[in-house]
Amino acid sequence: MDFRLTHTDSRSNARAGLITTDHGEIATPVFMPVGTAGTVKAVHIRDVDEDVKARIILGNTYHLYLRPGLDILREAGGLHKFNGWKKPILTDSGGYQVYSLTDRRKMKEEGVVFQSHIDGSKHMFSPERVMDIQRIIGADIIMAFDECTPYPCDYNYAVKSMELTHRWLDRCIARFNETEDLYGYRQTLFPIVQGSVYKDLRIRSAEKIASCNAGGNAIGGLAVGEPVETMYEFTELVCSILPHDKPRYLMGVGTPVNILEGISQGVDMFDCVMPTRNGRNGMIFTSQGIINLKNEKWKADFSPLDPEGTSFVDSAYSRAYVRHLFVAGEILGPMIASQHNIAFYLWLVDEARRKIEAGTFSTWKDEMVKRLGQRI
Amino acid sequence: MDFRLTHTDSRSNARAGLITTDHGEIATPVFMPVGTAGTVKAVHIRDVDEDVKARIILGNTYHLYLRPGLDILREAGGLHKFNGWKKPILTDSGGYQVYSLTDRRKMKEEGVVFQSHIDGSKHMFSPERVMDIQRIIGADIIMAFDECTPYPCDYNYAVKSMELTHRWLDRCIARFNETEDLYGYRQTLFPIVQGSVYKDLRIRSAEKIASCNAGGNAIGGLAVGEPVETMYEFTELVCSILPHDKPRYLMGVGTPVNILEGISQGVDMFDCVMPTRNGRNGMIFTSQGIINLKNEKWKADFSPLDPEGTSFVDSAYSRAYVRHLFVAGEILGPMIASQHNIAFYLWLVDEARRKIEAGTFSTWKDEMVKRLGQRI
Ligand SMILES: [Zn+2]
Ligand SMILES: [Zn+2]
Repeated sequence: MDFRLTHTDSRSNARAGLITTDHGEIATPVFMPVGTAGTVKAVHIRDVDEDVKARIILGNTYHLYLRPGLDILREAGGLHKFNGWKKPILTDSGGYQVYSLTDRRKMKEEGVVFQSHIDGSKHMFSPERVMDIQRIIGADIIMAFDECTPYPCDYNYAVKSMELTHRWLDRCIARFNETEDLYGYRQTLFPIVQGSVYKDLRIRSAEKIASCNAGGNAIGGLAVGEPVETMYEFTELVCSILPHDKPRYLMGVGTPVNILEGISQGVDMFDCVMPTRNGRNGMIFTSQGIINLKNEKWKADFSPLDPEGTSFVDSAYSRAYVRHLFVAGEILGPMIASQHNIAFYLWLVDEARRKIEAGTFSTWKDEMVKRLGQRI
Repeated sequence: MDFRLTHTDSRSNARAGLITTDHGEIATPVFMPVGTAGTVKAVHIRDVDEDVKARIILGNTYHLYLRPGLDILREAGGLHKFNGWKKPILTDSGGYQVYSLTDRRKMKEEGVVFQSHIDGSKHMFSPERVMDIQRIIGADIIMAFDECTPYPCDYNYAVKSMELTHRWLDRCIARFNETEDLYGYRQTLFPIVQGSVYKDLRIRSAEKIASCNAGGNAIGGLAVGEPVETMYEFTELVCSILPHDKPRYLMGVGTPVNILEGISQGVDMFDCVMPTRNGRNGMIFTSQGIINLKNEKWKADFSPLDPEGTSFVDSAYSRAYVRHLFVAGEILGPMIASQHNIAFYLWLVDEARRKIEAGTFSTWKDEMVKRLGQRI
């Protein structure tokens, strides 16, 4: 994986760049739709590619490890062959998911023992194991195995958690370096900054991660319940320490506004379940604001779903029709709203890129932030 | 609406023809995907058109009347404008649905009083009302309001039911003739043959319907639980009486084998929820037989879903991947299987048409019937 910065904004930390992988180029800033179990929920893979114009998707190691499982993925020749997605894939480390299995997991220095949420079977994720698993899934970008520190979290726990994440990182790097790309294309490891909302810890963690000289770097442990200003503050702090010439990935973020603010602070990559999850519930994001499609006010609005939208669904369906689909519980409703939302997120990061290139990012961002958050 | 027979098979009653409506031509024999609430479940309307190549879809009067309701449909300018489907639409009369509300409806000479399955509200469907409703929905082909005689059914009930259907038909025709096409395109009424599984009644009913000189004629009250041989026998009997120069529609049928047999007996039009309903449950129909995608045997079968299939889903996804989607409960599974199945049904009727034109329908049909029903 290579990264080349192409533009930097003079009035913010926003940047435009180009990641090159063996599955193609990724213009940044970029949003990565979440494909938990090897599918971006309710959207055809062809549409994720050609209609949404996604440049990279994310897969969840925890889910893919349990289903379809490593035997199938290896036999298929990796996730790309399995699901037919031909562009780059990033996998998370599964750390966040196993950590969420509160009563069904046990953390140790060695790793985490957990029970499957599907059948209760016991499994162990260690830094080494998780490197091997992501190799087998065949991700282009592999994430380090970390502990996502919960929020709120007292200082002592935050220190211990961060230090564990750092020791695990060293083991991840060692294992990653002693193993090979499995399917003939390059795989790249991203370490993850932790440190909760403590400035000294975030600085220590960012310096540790910066010192690894990895192909790219991630910021974890944010967007976990802290105030949004805290998230912005720590994103900016960490970005100021992470290498300038490597892509920065803010994990699990966020709303359209969060993403524009993140870009402004120097983030290049984002992922979030929000566009698909909220879409399934009838909420769509547009350049004019947020629409609750279930709202009665749309029942006779025969105008296009989103007149400024880039997906085919935006002009093919009216608001009244999509509202009807949600009211009637029809699957096509979630299909349309999910596809719209990820297309909108991709449009948003593309537009940010164009504004960065044109040198007008900051004023555009300020204007957009006002509109994006309002409910229409 | 016009109909022109283009070919008749010399060794069976199969025919190929062309229906012309103001929303375009429909080559027959044809299968009509069911779009209950104005959506063919789990398939984008663009795909129903361009990928599946459906030539006409069916809407359910009962469902559309309740949701989105007549006010919305009228304000939209009819269902075509509402859902964006530009080709012909046929609506059923709602008779079958209200009849199924066993404890929530009361049949009278005047019509049926029933309670909505959604909110318990009271409504009345009469022959006149149902003509008006289908006018408002904007169907190209409108079905008469009938009583779908249940199976089994004693002779006396069958006589009374059929006679009621005939009286209702006269009222439907009167109302239809005294009202106008609502949206500037032609609407055509199809009467329905009933008579349960009694030969004399079916003959009487078919003669009554034939005498109406309608644009097309339907056979109802079959595929309701009677043995398949009985269905074939009565289909053939009724087809022998219905006008030769008008399309014949066998309502609610059926499996791929049922459809080929129906074509062989002289039926031109079919509809059935089976391809979409069974698809949502992981069952697909192929030219080689029936596949249960949830079956473990597909878990490492990375070959295309259906190598001979005509939909993009058939080559875009592997059996192993679609099995995984069903096992993981992912929406994309039902989306793929539904789209495959209706595309397969359209392929099947198209292929039948080509064989009728080539004069090889009967031998092809006998071969296909052997394969289509087997489980692979
Ligand atoms: Zn998120
Ligand atoms: Zn059926």
